[in-house]
Amino acid sequence: MKKVVVIGLGLIGGSLALELKKRLGYTVCGMDTKEAHIKKALELGIIDKKSNDDDLKDADVVIVATPVNVVASVLQNVLNTISEETLVFDVGSVKNEICKTIASHSNRKNYVAAHPLAGTEFSGPEAAIYNLFDEKVNIICETEKCDWKVLDKAISLFKILNMRIKMMNPEAHDRHIAYVSHLSHVSSFMLGKTVLEIEKNEQHIFDMASTGFASTVRLAKSASSTWTPIFLQNKTNVLRSLEEYIKNLTEFKNLLENEDESGLNETMNNTNYIKTILNGIK
Amino acid sequence: MKKVVVIGLGLIGGSLALELKKRLGYTVCGMDTKEAHIKKALELGIIDKKSNDDDLKDADVVIVATPVNVVASVLQNVLNTISEETLVFDVGSVKNEICKTIASHSNRKNYVAAHPLAGTEFSGPEAAIYNLFDEKVNIICETEKCDWKVLDKAISLFKILNMRIKMMNPEAHDRHIAYVSHLSHVSSFMLGKTVLEIEKNEQHIFDMASTGFASTVRLAKSASSTWTPIFLQNKTNVLRSLEEYIKNLTEFKNLLENEDESGLNETMNNTNYIKTILNGIK
Repeated sequence: MKKVVVIGLGLIGGSLALELKKRLGYTVCGMDTKEAHIKKALELGIIDKKSNDDDLKDADVVIVATPVNVVASVLQNVLNTISEETLVFDVGSVKNEICKTIASHSNRKNYVAAHPLAGTEFSGPEAAIYNLFDEKVNIICETEKCDWKVLDKAISLFKILNMRIKMMNPEAHDRHIAYVSHLSHVSSFMLGKTVLEIEKNEQHIFDMASTGFASTVRLAKSASSTWTPIFLQNKTNVLRSLEEYIKNLTEFKNLLENEDESGLNETMNNTNYIKTILNGIK
Repeated sequence: MKKVVVIGLGLIGGSLALELKKRLGYTVCGMDTKEAHIKKALELGIIDKKSNDDDLKDADVVIVATPVNVVASVLQNVLNTISEETLVFDVGSVKNEICKTIASHSNRKNYVAAHPLAGTEFSGPEAAIYNLFDEKVNIICETEKCDWKVLDKAISLFKILNMRIKMMNPEAHDRHIAYVSHLSHVSSFMLGKTVLEIEKNEQHIFDMASTGFASTVRLAKSASSTWTPIFLQNKTNVLRSLEEYIKNLTEFKNLLENEDESGLNETMNNTNYIKTILNGIK
């Protein structure tokens, strides 16, 4: 039976483990620096066994689903150990630093730099769910550096998970994702912080959450152990997006201070175009 | 058959019309400054007939569901015209200015200042839906100024719509709602604007929206004709919340610039408490 080793048994690693077992009948071996995660993943049937470095030697697929700050060093170790035909991919939300770090590894060709754009605000093995990747986009970077058989294996696997595949270079990936994903997280975290600081009455927050707050603040439930490394690793792009965001908020504040009705209307009307984009494109 | 007049046939007015017809068998008369809204509401069966000021004279209930900047003047006209037992309520998202403006009207006692905390990002009569108010909170202000029979009629009606009722004074309402609701809207609008400005590739926005952007930017689809008057009428509170928000975003930016890992972790961990509040309180 084919073997997959999943390193990092959180929401994404755990969900991939579930899918590979169910859709492809893989034997799933799991690693995690947290013993409690391994125990929970075994209990929930997410993995078949606790893994060690020996499992890497004859694994068909190795998935690195750790926080982004350790992906590169984990990959080094994995690429040192695997067999010639093993597919190795990560799922990190920042790609450039990882790709640069392992660029000259002798087994670079076995690695596919992937970022499945899927997730929830929950974390840990308990958060792993089926069908998380259905119809979602998976961004793959630097495909030109992969062995074609390895790349073919990766694409076949992502297709079985029902994902849509996009190719992008790592710099472009990190720049786009900073604006569309990472900034949303900062915006949501700081909204949550602002409301928590000012609203001493927790019942009011709960009662009023249906006004749009609940959905806008959803991402503020995300784990800092995932997001601190992402923000740090994509620092330049996140800072640039954050500066633009603060500038726009300050402009809005000025419009409101000046009671500039037509200015407020205009900025909101223009932004309504996001509706067309989110509904329209396939 | 009892008659309700709904003034303003948008998402909230239209949805109330649907409920009052279905759950209470009211004849629903509708008014709107936009002739197209009346036509659409008739077409969709949201209202039974187009209304005029004469209908106000023998209406059992009058609902004012216009943008907040015209609520007070519409209320003046309504209170001038109604019979002694008519219940009049509005649904405005800002309460203090409206309450002050009609405070000395001879029929003030017929008016219940309400704010049902329900909605979607859509607008107009087409956006009207059933069960929008189920289990939602309805904040009522200045109940001490209402005739008790009128208040009783309002509360009975809100209970039939399956709403939870909270009492609050108008100043407190406007202060709390600025943080929990109005700030979420500004945050979302400016997130949309920032991404639109920088992301010239609309396909990328669409492809990457599943990363949390779609839910965080949802409110940016809302109508400026609703929201410009709300922001202007709750200016002081919205500005204060916006200043706090910008301050927190700037602090986050500084933490990231300084690569302050423990500071970033701490601010996100503390904000995770929002999860407990949104899940926990009833």
